[in-house]
Amino acid sequence: MSTLALLARVLASFLFGALLLVLFVALFAVWRYASHDQRDDPERLENKRAYLTSLAAQPRSESQPNIVFILYDDLGYGDIGHGAGDNLIDTPHLDALANAGVVFSDFHSPAPVCTPSRAGYLTGRLPLRAGLPDVVFPSRGDPITALTRILAPERNQRIPAEEITLADILGAAGYATGMVGKWHMGDVSPSLPNDMGFDEYYGALYSNDMTPFAHYRDKEIAVPAPVDQREMSAMYTREAIAFVERHADGPFFLYFAHNFPHDPLHVREERAGRSRAGLFGDVMEEIDEGVGLLVATLRERGLLDDTLIVITSDNGPWYLGDAGNQRGRKGNTFEGGMRVPFIAHWPARISGGRVEHAMSMGTDLVPTVLELLDLPAPRDRAIDGRSILTVLTEGGDSPHAHLYYFDSDNLFAVRTERFKYRGPRGVFYSTDSMPIGGSMPQKEWLFDLEGDPRESYDTSLTHPEVLKRLREAFAAKEDELEANLRGWN
Amino acid sequence: MSTLALLARVLASFLFGALLLVLFVALFAVWRYASHDQRDDPERLENKRAYLTSLAAQPRSESQPNIVFILYDDLGYGDIGHGAGDNLIDTPHLDALANAGVVFSDFHSPAPVCTPSRAGYLTGRLPLRAGLPDVVFPSRGDPITALTRILAPERNQRIPAEEITLADILGAAGYATGMVGKWHMGDVSPSLPNDMGFDEYYGALYSNDMTPFAHYRDKEIAVPAPVDQREMSAMYTREAIAFVERHADGPFFLYFAHNFPHDPLHVREERAGRSRAGLFGDVMEEIDEGVGLLVATLRERGLLDDTLIVITSDNGPWYLGDAGNQRGRKGNTFEGGMRVPFIAHWPARISGGRVEHAMSMGTDLVPTVLELLDLPAPRDRAIDGRSILTVLTEGGDSPHAHLYYFDSDNLFAVRTERFKYRGPRGVFYSTDSMPIGGSMPQKEWLFDLEGDPRESYDTSLTHPEVLKRLREAFAAKEDELEANLRGWN
Repeated sequence: MSTLALLARVLASFLFGALLLVLFVALFAVWRYASHDQRDDPERLENKRAYLTSLAAQPRSESQPNIVFILYDDLGYGDIGHGAGDNLIDTPHLDALANAGVVFSDFHSPAPVCTPSRAGYLTGRLPLRAGLPDVVFPSRGDPITALTRILAPERNQRIPAEEITLADILGAAGYATGMVGKWHMGDVSPSLPNDMGFDEYYGALYSNDMTPFAHYRDKEIAVPAPVDQREMSAMYTREAIAFVERHADGPFFLYFAHNFPHDPLHVREERAGRSRAGLFGDVMEEIDEGVGLLVATLRERGLLDDTLIVITSDNGPWYLGDAGNQRGRKGNTFEGGMRVPFIAHWPARISGGRVEHAMSMGTDLVPTVLELLDLPAPRDRAIDGRSILTVLTEGGDSPHAHLYYFDSDNLFAVRTERFKYRGPRGVFYSTDSMPIGGSMPQKEWLFDLEGDPRESYDTSLTHPEVLKRLREAFAAKEDELEANLRGWN
Repeated sequence: MSTLALLARVLASFLFGALLLVLFVALFAVWRYASHDQRDDPERLENKRAYLTSLAAQPRSESQPNIVFILYDDLGYGDIGHGAGDNLIDTPHLDALANAGVVFSDFHSPAPVCTPSRAGYLTGRLPLRAGLPDVVFPSRGDPITALTRILAPERNQRIPAEEITLADILGAAGYATGMVGKWHMGDVSPSLPNDMGFDEYYGALYSNDMTPFAHYRDKEIAVPAPVDQREMSAMYTREAIAFVERHADGPFFLYFAHNFPHDPLHVREERAGRSRAGLFGDVMEEIDEGVGLLVATLRERGLLDDTLIVITSDNGPWYLGDAGNQRGRKGNTFEGGMRVPFIAHWPARISGGRVEHAMSMGTDLVPTVLELLDLPAPRDRAIDGRSILTVLTEGGDSPHAHLYYFDSDNLFAVRTERFKYRGPRGVFYSTDSMPIGGSMPQKEWLFDLEGDPRESYDTSLTHPEVLKRLREAFAAKEDELEANLRGWN
């Protein structure tokens, strides 16, 4: 056989072998993809039903204020005036609520990204416990979802149906429950808003940069993709006001989750270029106008005095937006990724003009509402949040000895009011406030937030006792989660 | 032939093919590695010699102050008190110089990383023009150097010998020239400190996280690797003082380039844990003590009054350290990556207690010294810096209409005093202040630094005329460099 023919045969065999490999990988991928099969836990589902039934049987609390929970998407600590003094964006209606209500200077989203943060806000549980530590993408046709299903088929793609949401609780307590806006905790039953406690829903199931981007009314498409996002803020505001008007006899719970100022940004044409802060400012100022309209409706109906309005964000700012004078942005556990604006307004119970510095987190919302309505917490599962009702109404100390900062499956930091300890995780999922490259050194860092709010100096040497104590708290929390991730009792 | 035997043969052929591929790639890599051959430009070398000879022939300027240029490594804008108000680090000696001298609030390193920044400081040229836009690593035995030589054998691994340094100029003008500390512009002749204008040298040729980390006296190893870095600050200070004492009859030029506070951090044992800012603070406070000793020497010798001391940093802070109230860190072109502390002290000519807000850059140092000594600039090459002598001595406006922000080979931003335009580069070499992932959207951004010092809002819509103007300036600079990268006349 000539050398050429030999080479040709070797090459052919090589190609054949490579083809076999590709086929094998493809088959494996298909098998992995198909093996994703998220199942809900029948025992916990039964517990949930029993708990909600028991709530419905409880005597009604004397105080049943309406609750409006406004959640912005990627709004940073410095994006609205109250968080970091003057800025280029004018939000007179938000400012008015802040001035007449209470502002928290040290409030944190439950996670540094969308999906887990929302799971934390609505369940009062750490996103990991709620089974949803990562961002989910559209279940059909999305390459990231496909890849996730292949690489980690055990990963949930929707909030487990056995989770108990704020809407479940308030519905059981006799509230009309409605949601307007971004859900982002799965796009299939039994994990849609109407499955998870909301009587009424209008909005988008994902972030506004995901496709197809349609609007749903309850479980049906109301506006087919692609939604004209220039009209979105106005549409959401109209829907929120309509919900309030339908249920003006109360009590009602409205969860109003804007898709903005998450990128891409859009405003009605006549608003473009009006703000001093470009399109981002235009968007925020249009949203602020919407807040004004909603508040005006509440006032006209005589409801404002006994409506608890809570306004915050799901995480720090993304590429644009202002994290305030702190390190980090969306996607990491520096303060800028999770410390977000927080305003609460409730003339009947909250004396205005206060700024509270107690540290708190979005997981505190559920326990706060439970205390407010004098309702018991579920006993079959851990609730990680603590009630901040007293801080809201009277001020005072944080109910937390420690605050825990998770990103995805991992604990990254634990803090007290003064100190923040970062565990020695080397490679970070996210890279914000990191220079060159996407990883950080595998070192323990202890920040003294009092003198170093931008998390710049590792004071381990200065405060060895604090280091020891927080290292233990960090390890204890990791052990607790390893022993019982979902926190079932 | 049985199926098994066939499979075995296919597999064997496959492995054989793969082996051939690997061999081919290895041969190609070796060929590429060997093809790296940095040559200096004989014509420009001759021009350099002629220029320096002409300088030596110039009449001596009436004023020939001593010049001490202290450069810190990775010192952030907020790391010393004057930059951002109170912090946890006590630097009384630096503060005293700042109070008795002038502080620039808007001074920038020539690049966001070590090597190119130093090239810019010493040549007055943009690092790209000086032929050294990227960090260099030890020429022997370093995997990054090897990979760079394979992937980009045309890339310089040392500063081209035809470049004219501040030391060349001052030496020709009759100064004794000495350097103590980190060189980081190549580790082989003809690009060592003693080749590039320094009569005397003591220090490390690289960053303190690169190996082998030895100390050199002139071109010979003085302390073999690994240097005990706990003693390094004290060693450098002793060397700096010894240089001053040797040349007390002046005039002298001392370039004192600390390896700290670049990571890894070390201090003498008895200093560890003394600062309120942990080891980083300990390091800075030991360095500050060294500044105090150096200043005391100058004072004792009666030299302080007519010594121009300039203190700044090569880029923003790395993993630790404080960028101040601005976005970004080392490795990127947000302000936090390049806006650094700047103190100038010269009792004879600089009236103290001033803060100047004119924007400037490290490339201004060479033209400033040329004006100060009444010397002509070289005519065969572009000098990108502008003299800031008047701003230093009297205050006033920036000599720059525009400041350009480069990282590696690319222009990222251009600014005026008020606005900063970022070109639509999608993928960034560095990822600081970026959330999830290491890239940014391919969008143009226009920041209004006056109302938005943290570069949070794209105000393109608000200021379309400014956008247009800065987009043009950006494109013009790119065209200029494309037409004549090294700026030869």
